[in-house]
Amino acid sequence: MLLQNVEQYVEKLIPKRTELVEEMEAYAKEYVVPIMELIGIETLLQILRLHQPKHILEIGTAIGYSAIRMAEALPNAQIVTVERNETRYEKAQTFIERANKKEQITTLFGDALELIDEIARKGPYDAVFIDAAKGQYQRFFEHYQPLLNKNGIIISDNILFKGHVATDLAEIETRRKRSLIKKIDGYNNWLMNHPDFYTTILPIGDGIAISIKRGD
Amino acid sequence: MLLQNVEQYVEKLIPKRTELVEEMEAYAKEYVVPIMELIGIETLLQILRLHQPKHILEIGTAIGYSAIRMAEALPNAQIVTVERNETRYEKAQTFIERANKKEQITTLFGDALELIDEIARKGPYDAVFIDAAKGQYQRFFEHYQPLLNKNGIIISDNILFKGHVATDLAEIETRRKRSLIKKIDGYNNWLMNHPDFYTTILPIGDGIAISIKRGD
Repeated sequence: MLLQNVEQYVEKLIPKRTELVEEMEAYAKEYVVPIMELIGIETLLQILRLHQPKHILEIGTAIGYSAIRMAEALPNAQIVTVERNETRYEKAQTFIERANKKEQITTLFGDALELIDEIARKGPYDAVFIDAAKGQYQRFFEHYQPLLNKNGIIISDNILFKGHVATDLAEIETRRKRSLIKKIDGYNNWLMNHPDFYTTILPIGDGIAISIKRGD
Repeated sequence: MLLQNVEQYVEKLIPKRTELVEEMEAYAKEYVVPIMELIGIETLLQILRLHQPKHILEIGTAIGYSAIRMAEALPNAQIVTVERNETRYEKAQTFIERANKKEQITTLFGDALELIDEIARKGPYDAVFIDAAKGQYQRFFEHYQPLLNKNGIIISDNILFKGHVATDLAEIETRRKRSLIKKIDGYNNWLMNHPDFYTTILPIGDGIAISIKRGD
Protein backbone atom coordinates (compact mmCIF):
# COMPACT_ATOMS: atom_id res chain seq x y z
CA MET A 1 0.00 0.00 0.00
CA LEU A 2 1.35 3.43 -0.89
CA LEU A 3 0.87 5.06 2.47
CA GLN A 4 1.14 8.62 1.26
CA ASN A 5 -1.46 8.21 -1.49
CA VAL A 6 -3.85 6.58 0.94
CA GLU A 7 -3.43 9.34 3.51
CA GLN A 8 -4.02 12.00 0.88
CA TYR A 9 -7.11 10.11 -0.30
CA VAL A 10 -8.54 9.93 3.22
CA GLU A 11 -7.65 13.57 4.00
CA LYS A 12 -9.47 14.75 0.89
CA LEU A 13 -12.65 13.08 2.14
CA ILE A 14 -12.56 14.88 5.51
CA PRO A 15 -15.14 17.69 5.69
CA LYS A 16 -13.98 21.30 5.89
CA ARG A 17 -13.49 22.66 9.40
CA THR A 18 -14.68 26.06 10.64
CA GLU A 19 -12.76 29.12 9.49
CA LEU A 20 -11.11 29.56 12.88
CA VAL A 21 -10.02 25.92 13.05
CA GLU A 22 -8.49 26.14 9.59
CA GLU A 23 -6.74 29.37 10.65
CA MET A 24 -5.26 27.43 13.59
CA GLU A 25 -4.08 24.67 11.26
CA ALA A 26 -2.33 27.28 9.11
CA TYR A 27 -0.86 28.98 12.20
CA ALA A 28 0.52 25.67 13.50
CA LYS A 29 2.09 24.97 10.13
CA GLU A 30 3.67 28.43 9.87
CA TYR A 31 5.06 28.50 13.40
CA VAL A 32 5.86 24.77 13.52
CA VAL A 33 3.63 24.09 16.53
CA PRO A 34 3.03 20.35 16.82
CA ILE A 35 -0.75 19.96 16.64
CA MET A 36 -2.39 16.65 15.73
CA GLU A 37 -2.52 15.92 12.05
CA LEU A 38 -5.88 15.75 10.33
CA ILE A 39 -6.45 11.97 10.25
CA GLY A 40 -5.25 11.69 13.85
CA ILE A 41 -7.57 14.35 15.23
CA GLU A 42 -10.56 12.98 13.29
CA THR A 43 -9.83 9.54 14.76
CA LEU A 44 -9.58 11.00 18.27
CA LEU A 45 -12.89 12.84 17.87
CA GLN A 46 -14.63 9.70 16.63
CA ILE A 47 -13.29 7.71 19.59
CA LEU A 48 -14.67 10.37 21.92
CA ARG A 49 -18.04 10.40 20.11
CA LEU A 50 -18.23 6.65 20.76
CA HIS A 51 -17.19 7.00 24.39
CA GLN A 52 -19.15 10.21 25.21
CA PRO A 53 -17.02 11.45 28.11
CA LYS A 54 -18.47 14.27 30.23
CA HIS A 55 -15.12 15.32 31.76
CA ILE A 56 -11.92 15.34 29.76
CA LEU A 57 -8.37 16.09 30.88
CA GLU A 58 -5.83 17.05 28.23
CA ILE A 59 -2.12 17.12 29.00
CA GLY A 60 -0.44 19.41 26.48
CA THR A 61 -2.71 22.17 25.17
CA ALA A 62 -0.29 23.60 22.60
CA ILE A 63 -2.39 26.33 20.95
CA GLY A 64 -5.72 24.79 21.92
CA TYR A 65 -6.44 23.05 18.63
CA SER A 66 -7.50 19.64 19.98
CA ALA A 67 -9.30 21.19 22.98
CA ILE A 68 -11.43 23.36 20.68
CA ARG A 69 -12.13 20.46 18.33
CA MET A 70 -13.11 18.20 21.26
CA ALA A 71 -15.40 20.95 22.61
CA GLU A 72 -17.08 21.27 19.20
CA ALA A 73 -17.55 17.50 18.83
CA LEU A 74 -18.85 17.05 22.41
CA PRO A 75 -20.94 20.10 23.30
CA ASN A 76 -21.83 18.63 26.71
CA ALA A 77 -18.28 17.86 27.80
CA GLN A 78 -16.10 19.93 30.13
CA ILE A 79 -12.42 20.02 29.24
CA VAL A 80 -9.45 20.78 31.50
CA THR A 81 -6.23 21.31 29.57
CA VAL A 82 -2.68 21.95 30.83
CA GLU A 83 0.23 23.68 29.05
CA ARG A 84 3.63 24.58 30.46
CA ASN A 85 4.90 26.71 27.58
CA GLU A 86 3.81 30.29 28.27
CA THR A 87 3.66 31.53 24.67
CA ARG A 88 1.53 28.56 23.64
CA TYR A 89 -0.65 28.91 26.73
CA GLU A 90 -1.35 32.58 25.87
CA LYS A 91 -2.04 31.75 22.26
CA ALA A 92 -4.41 28.96 23.29
CA GLN A 93 -6.32 31.38 25.53
CA THR A 94 -6.81 33.75 22.59
CA PHE A 95 -8.01 31.02 20.24
CA ILE A 96 -10.34 29.50 22.85
CA GLU A 97 -11.88 32.92 23.47
CA ARG A 98 -12.32 33.52 19.76
CA ALA A 99 -13.96 30.10 19.43
CA ASN A 100 -16.40 31.00 22.24
CA LYS A 101 -15.36 27.93 24.21
CA LYS A 102 -14.23 29.57 27.46
CA GLU A 103 -17.12 28.03 29.38
CA GLN A 104 -16.33 24.57 28.15
CA ILE A 105 -12.53 24.67 28.36
CA THR A 106 -10.43 25.43 31.45
CA THR A 107 -6.82 26.16 30.54
CA LEU A 108 -4.17 25.71 33.23
CA PHE A 109 -0.65 27.09 32.96
CA GLY A 110 2.10 24.88 34.36
CA ASP A 111 3.63 21.43 34.45
CA ALA A 112 1.04 18.65 34.54
CA LEU A 113 3.13 16.73 37.06
CA GLU A 114 3.21 19.70 39.45
CA LEU A 115 -0.43 20.74 39.07
CA ILE A 116 -1.86 17.37 40.05
CA ASP A 117 -3.69 18.65 43.15
CA GLU A 118 -5.48 21.38 41.25
CA ILE A 119 -6.28 18.98 38.40
CA ALA A 120 -7.54 16.38 40.89
CA ARG A 121 -9.92 18.96 42.45
CA LYS A 122 -11.44 19.53 39.03
CA GLY A 123 -11.79 15.76 38.40
CA PRO A 124 -12.54 12.89 38.20
CA TYR A 125 -12.33 12.37 34.45
CA ASP A 126 -13.89 10.02 31.89
CA ALA A 127 -11.08 10.52 29.41
CA VAL A 128 -7.46 11.64 29.72
CA PHE A 129 -5.63 12.66 26.56
CA ILE A 130 -1.82 12.69 26.81
CA ASP A 131 -0.16 14.73 24.09
CA ALA A 132 2.91 16.19 25.81
CA ALA A 133 6.61 15.44 26.52
CA LYS A 134 7.08 11.96 25.07
CA GLY A 135 9.73 10.96 27.63
CA GLN A 136 7.21 11.41 30.47
CA TYR A 137 4.24 9.39 29.26
CA GLN A 138 4.48 6.63 31.84
CA ARG A 139 4.70 9.18 34.68
CA PHE A 140 1.68 11.06 33.27
CA PHE A 141 -0.24 7.81 33.00
CA GLU A 142 0.62 6.70 36.53
CA HIS A 143 -0.18 10.14 38.00
CA TYR A 144 -3.53 10.57 36.31
CA GLN A 145 -4.88 7.03 36.18
CA PRO A 146 -6.27 7.33 39.76
CA LEU A 147 -8.42 10.29 38.59
CA LEU A 148 -10.21 8.12 36.04
CA ASN A 149 -13.87 7.19 36.43
CA LYS A 150 -15.15 3.65 35.94
CA ASN A 151 -14.92 2.73 32.24
CA GLY A 152 -12.60 5.67 31.75
CA ILE A 153 -10.10 5.83 28.92
CA ILE A 154 -6.59 7.17 28.47
CA ILE A 155 -5.46 8.15 24.99
CA SER A 156 -1.74 8.59 24.32
CA ASP A 157 -0.68 10.38 21.15
CA ASN A 158 2.70 10.13 19.37
CA ILE A 159 3.52 6.69 20.67
CA LEU A 160 5.08 5.61 17.37
CA PHE A 161 7.21 8.79 17.17
CA LYS A 162 6.81 9.20 13.39
CA GLY A 163 7.71 5.53 12.99
CA HIS A 164 11.13 5.94 14.64
CA VAL A 165 10.08 3.52 17.34
CA ALA A 166 10.16 0.73 14.74
CA THR A 167 13.61 1.67 13.44
CA ASP A 168 16.78 -0.27 14.26
CA LEU A 169 18.46 1.77 17.02
CA ALA A 170 21.85 1.43 15.29
CA GLU A 171 20.48 3.60 12.49
CA ILE A 172 19.59 6.50 14.81
CA GLU A 173 22.21 9.26 14.79
CA THR A 174 21.89 11.02 18.13
CA ARG A 175 22.09 9.59 21.61
CA ARG A 176 19.20 11.80 22.75
CA LYS A 177 16.93 10.38 20.08
CA ARG A 178 17.99 6.81 20.84
CA SER A 179 17.19 7.37 24.49
CA LEU A 180 13.78 8.83 23.64
CA ILE A 181 12.96 5.90 21.35
CA LYS A 182 13.86 3.46 24.14
CA LYS A 183 11.59 5.33 26.53
CA ILE A 184 8.64 5.34 24.14
CA ASP A 185 9.16 1.66 23.32
CA GLY A 186 9.32 0.94 27.04
CA TYR A 187 6.05 2.83 27.55
CA ASN A 188 4.32 0.92 24.76
CA ASN A 189 5.38 -2.44 26.19
CA TRP A 190 4.40 -1.43 29.71
CA LEU A 191 1.05 -0.11 28.51
CA MET A 192 0.15 -3.15 26.39
CA ASN A 193 0.84 -5.39 29.40
CA HIS A 194 -0.91 -3.24 32.02
CA PRO A 195 -3.30 -5.56 33.87
CA ASP A 196 -5.96 -2.86 34.50
CA PHE A 197 -6.37 -1.65 30.90
CA TYR A 198 -7.21 -2.98 27.44
CA THR A 199 -4.90 -1.11 25.09
CA THR A 200 -4.88 -0.99 21.29
CA ILE A 201 -2.30 0.92 19.27
CA LEU A 202 -3.61 2.55 16.11
CA PRO A 203 -0.86 3.15 13.53
CA ILE A 204 -2.49 6.43 12.51
CA GLY A 205 -0.82 9.83 12.44
CA ASP A 206 2.11 9.55 14.86
CA GLY A 207 0.52 6.58 16.59
CA ILE A 208 -2.43 6.67 18.99
CA ALA A 209 -2.84 4.27 21.93
CA ILE A 210 -6.34 3.82 23.34
CA SER A 211 -6.42 2.32 26.84
CA ILE A 212 -9.78 1.34 28.33
CA LYS A 213 -9.97 0.72 32.08
CA ARG A 214 -11.21 -2.81 32.73
CA GLY A 215 -14.48 -3.10 34.63
CA ASP A 216 -14.06 -4.17 38.24
CA MET B 1 7.28 6.39 7.98
CA LEU B 2 8.14 2.87 6.88
CA LEU B 3 4.67 1.42 7.01
CA GLN B 4 5.72 -2.20 7.09
CA ASN B 5 8.14 -1.76 9.99
CA VAL B 6 5.53 0.11 11.97
CA GLU B 7 2.89 -2.55 11.34
CA GLN B 8 5.29 -5.29 12.40
CA TYR B 9 6.16 -3.29 15.51
CA VAL B 10 2.50 -2.87 16.48
CA GLU B 11 1.65 -6.52 15.67
CA LYS B 12 4.45 -7.74 17.93
CA LEU B 13 2.89 -5.85 20.84
CA ILE B 14 -0.52 -7.48 20.40
CA PRO B 15 -1.19 -10.14 23.07
CA LYS B 16 -1.43 -13.78 22.08
CA ARG B 17 -4.90 -15.00 21.21
CA THR B 18 -6.48 -18.26 22.38
CA GLU B 19 -5.27 -21.47 20.78
CA LEU B 20 -8.46 -21.84 18.74
CA VAL B 21 -8.29 -18.26 17.46
CA GLU B 22 -4.68 -18.74 16.38
CA GLU B 23 -5.70 -22.00 14.69
CA MET B 24 -8.32 -20.00 12.75
CA GLU B 25 -5.71 -17.43 11.73
CA ALA B 26 -3.52 -20.24 10.41
CA TYR B 27 -6.49 -21.87 8.63
CA ALA B 28 -7.41 -18.56 6.95
CA LYS B 29 -3.84 -18.12 5.78
CA GLU B 30 -3.59 -21.68 4.44
CA TYR B 31 -6.93 -21.64 2.61
CA VAL B 32 -6.74 -17.96 1.61
CA VAL B 33 -9.95 -17.02 3.41
CA PRO B 34 -10.11 -13.24 3.81
CA ILE B 35 -10.36 -12.65 7.54
CA MET B 36 -9.49 -9.30 9.12
CA GLU B 37 -5.81 -8.75 9.68
CA LEU B 38 -4.53 -8.48 13.22
CA ILE B 39 -4.30 -4.69 13.62
CA GLY B 40 -7.70 -4.27 11.96
CA ILE B 41 -9.51 -6.75 14.21
CA GLU B 42 -7.88 -5.32 17.34
CA THR B 43 -9.05 -1.85 16.28
CA LEU B 44 -12.58 -3.15 15.66
CA LEU B 45 -12.70 -4.81 19.07
CA GLN B 46 -11.51 -1.64 20.80
CA ILE B 47 -14.18 0.42 19.01
CA LEU B 48 -16.79 -2.06 20.20
CA ARG B 49 -15.42 -1.99 23.78
CA LEU B 50 -15.89 1.81 23.70
CA HIS B 51 -19.37 1.57 22.22
CA GLN B 52 -20.60 -1.47 24.21
CA PRO B 53 -23.27 -2.71 21.79
CA LYS B 54 -25.70 -5.33 23.10
CA HIS B 55 -26.86 -6.48 19.65
CA ILE B 56 -24.49 -6.79 16.73
CA LEU B 57 -25.20 -7.68 13.10
CA GLU B 58 -22.31 -8.90 10.97
CA ILE B 59 -22.62 -9.14 7.20
CA GLY B 60 -20.02 -11.62 5.99
CA THR B 61 -19.19 -14.34 8.52
CA ALA B 62 -16.43 -16.00 6.50
CA ILE B 63 -15.17 -18.70 8.92
CA GLY B 64 -16.48 -16.93 12.04
CA TYR B 65 -13.21 -15.31 13.08
CA SER B 66 -14.49 -11.79 13.79
CA ALA B 67 -17.76 -13.09 15.27
CA ILE B 68 -15.88 -15.25 17.77
CA ARG B 69 -13.47 -12.44 18.62
CA MET B 70 -16.37 -10.00 19.13
CA ALA B 71 -18.15 -12.53 21.34
CA GLU B 72 -15.00 -12.93 23.46
CA ALA B 73 -14.49 -9.16 23.79
CA LEU B 74 -18.16 -8.46 24.60
CA PRO B 75 -19.46 -11.35 26.70
CA ASN B 76 -22.88 -9.68 27.08
CA ALA B 77 -23.47 -9.04 23.40
CA GLN B 78 -25.62 -11.11 21.04
CA ILE B 79 -24.29 -11.46 17.51
CA VAL B 80 -26.21 -12.28 14.33
CA THR B 81 -23.92 -13.07 11.41
CA VAL B 82 -24.77 -13.85 7.76
CA GLU B 83 -22.75 -15.81 5.20
CA ARG B 84 -23.76 -16.83 1.69
CA ASN B 85 -20.87 -19.17 0.90
CA GLU B 86 -21.89 -22.63 2.06
CA THR B 87 -18.41 -24.03 2.73
CA ARG B 88 -17.50 -21.02 4.83
CA TYR B 89 -20.83 -21.10 6.60
CA GLU B 90 -20.29 -24.75 7.59
CA LYS B 91 -16.73 -24.08 8.67
CA ALA B 92 -17.89 -21.09 10.77
CA GLN B 93 -20.49 -23.30 12.49
CA THR B 94 -17.77 -25.76 13.46
CA PHE B 95 -15.44 -23.09 14.81
CA ILE B 96 -18.24 -21.33 16.73
CA GLU B 97 -19.23 -24.63 18.33
CA ARG B 98 -15.63 -25.40 19.25
CA ALA B 99 -15.32 -21.89 20.77
CA ASN B 100 -18.47 -22.53 22.87
CA LYS B 101 -20.10 -19.43 21.45
CA LYS B 102 -23.29 -20.97 20.02
CA GLU B 103 -25.47 -19.18 22.55
CA GLN B 104 -23.96 -15.82 21.74
CA ILE B 105 -23.69 -16.13 17.96
CA THR B 106 -26.54 -16.86 15.54
CA THR B 107 -25.23 -17.82 12.10
CA LEU B 108 -27.54 -17.39 9.12
CA PHE B 109 -26.92 -18.97 5.74
CA GLY B 110 -27.82 -16.87 2.71
CA ASP B 111 -27.54 -13.49 1.04
CA ALA B 112 -27.81 -10.57 3.45
CA LEU B 113 -29.95 -8.65 0.96
CA GLU B 114 -32.45 -11.51 0.75
CA LEU B 115 -32.60 -12.37 4.43
CA ILE B 116 -33.55 -8.86 5.55
CA ASP B 117 -36.92 -9.90 7.04
CA GLU B 118 -35.40 -12.61 9.19
CA ILE B 119 -32.56 -10.30 10.22
CA ALA B 120 -35.05 -7.53 11.04
CA ARG B 121 -37.02 -9.88 13.30
CA LYS B 122 -33.84 -10.55 15.30
CA GLY B 123 -33.04 -6.78 15.52
CA PRO B 124 -32.80 -3.88 16.17
CA TYR B 125 -29.02 -3.56 16.40
CA ASP B 126 -26.55 -1.27 18.15
CA ALA B 127 -23.78 -2.05 15.71
CA VAL B 128 -23.69 -3.35 12.13
CA PHE B 129 -20.40 -4.62 10.77
CA ILE B 130 -20.18 -4.85 6.97
CA ASP B 131 -17.40 -7.11 5.76
CA ALA B 132 -18.79 -8.64 2.58
CA ALA B 133 -19.00 -8.08 -1.21
CA LYS B 134 -17.31 -4.71 -1.67
CA GLY B 135 -19.45 -3.74 -4.66
CA GLN B 136 -22.61 -3.89 -2.51
CA TYR B 137 -21.66 -1.76 0.48
CA GLN B 138 -24.05 1.10 -0.22
CA ARG B 139 -26.96 -1.32 -0.64
CA PHE B 140 -26.05 -3.09 2.59
CA PHE B 141 -25.84 0.25 4.38
CA GLU B 142 -29.18 1.47 3.02
CA HIS B 143 -30.90 -1.84 3.78
CA TYR B 144 -29.66 -2.14 7.34
CA GLN B 145 -29.52 1.44 8.51
CA PRO B 146 -33.25 1.38 9.48
CA LEU B 147 -32.53 -1.51 11.89
CA LEU B 148 -30.10 0.64 13.89
CA ASN B 149 -30.88 1.78 17.42
CA LYS B 150 -30.36 5.37 18.60
CA ASN B 151 -26.61 6.09 18.77
CA GLY B 152 -26.02 3.00 16.66
CA ILE B 153 -22.91 2.56 14.55
CA ILE B 154 -22.10 1.00 11.21
CA ILE B 155 -18.57 -0.21 10.58
CA SER B 156 -17.48 -0.88 7.01
CA ASP B 157 -14.30 -2.87 6.44
CA ASN B 158 -12.10 -2.90 3.30
CA ILE B 159 -13.10 0.55 2.16
CA LEU B 160 -9.57 1.37 0.97
CA PHE B 161 -9.30 -1.92 -0.96
CA LYS B 162 -5.62 -2.50 -0.05
CA GLY B 163 -4.90 1.10 -1.07
CA HIS B 164 -6.14 0.58 -4.65
CA VAL B 165 -8.82 3.19 -4.09
CA ALA B 166 -6.06 5.85 -3.96
CA THR B 167 -4.43 4.63 -7.20
CA ASP B 168 -4.73 6.43 -10.51
CA LEU B 169 -7.36 4.41 -12.42
CA ALA B 170 -5.20 4.47 -15.58
CA GLU B 171 -2.71 2.25 -13.75
CA ILE B 172 -5.30 -0.47 -13.03
CA GLU B 173 -5.09 -3.36 -15.48
CA THR B 174 -8.52 -4.95 -15.50
CA ARG B 175 -11.89 -3.37 -16.23
CA ARG B 176 -13.48 -5.35 -13.40
CA LYS B 177 -11.06 -3.94 -10.88
CA ARG B 178 -11.48 -0.39 -12.20
CA SER B 179 -15.22 -0.73 -11.83
CA LEU B 180 -14.89 -2.04 -8.27
CA ILE B 181 -12.56 0.83 -7.33
CA LYS B 182 -15.08 3.35 -8.69
CA LYS B 183 -17.82 1.71 -6.65
CA ILE B 184 -15.83 1.78 -3.42
CA ASP B 185 -14.73 5.37 -4.01
CA GLY B 186 -18.36 6.27 -4.67
CA TYR B 187 -19.39 4.59 -1.42
CA ASN B 188 -16.72 6.46 0.56
CA ASN B 189 -17.82 9.82 -0.84
CA TRP B 190 -21.48 9.02 -0.28
CA LEU B 191 -20.79 7.84 3.27
CA MET B 192 -18.63 10.82 4.30
CA ASN B 193 -21.40 13.16 3.12
CA HIS B 194 -24.33 11.24 4.62
CA PRO B 195 -26.34 13.78 6.64
CA ASP B 196 -27.44 11.28 9.33
CA PHE B 197 -24.01 9.91 10.25
CA TYR B 198 -20.61 11.12 11.44
CA THR B 199 -18.08 9.01 9.56
CA THR B 200 -14.33 8.70 10.02
CA ILE B 201 -12.12 6.56 7.83
CA LEU B 202 -9.25 4.84 9.60
CA PRO B 203 -6.39 3.96 7.23
CA ILE B 204 -5.76 0.74 9.14
CA GLY B 205 -5.64 -2.73 7.68
CA ASP B 206 -7.66 -2.51 4.45
CA GLY B 207 -9.41 0.63 5.65
CA ILE B 208 -12.17 0.81 8.25
CA ALA B 209 -15.01 3.37 8.18
CA ILE B 210 -16.81 4.09 11.45
CA SER B 211 -20.20 5.75 11.02
CA ILE B 212 -22.04 7.00 14.11
CA LYS B 213 -25.73 7.79 13.78
CA ARG B 214 -26.34 11.42 14.75
CA GLY B 215 -28.65 11.98 17.72
CA ASP B 216 -32.12 13.22 16.79
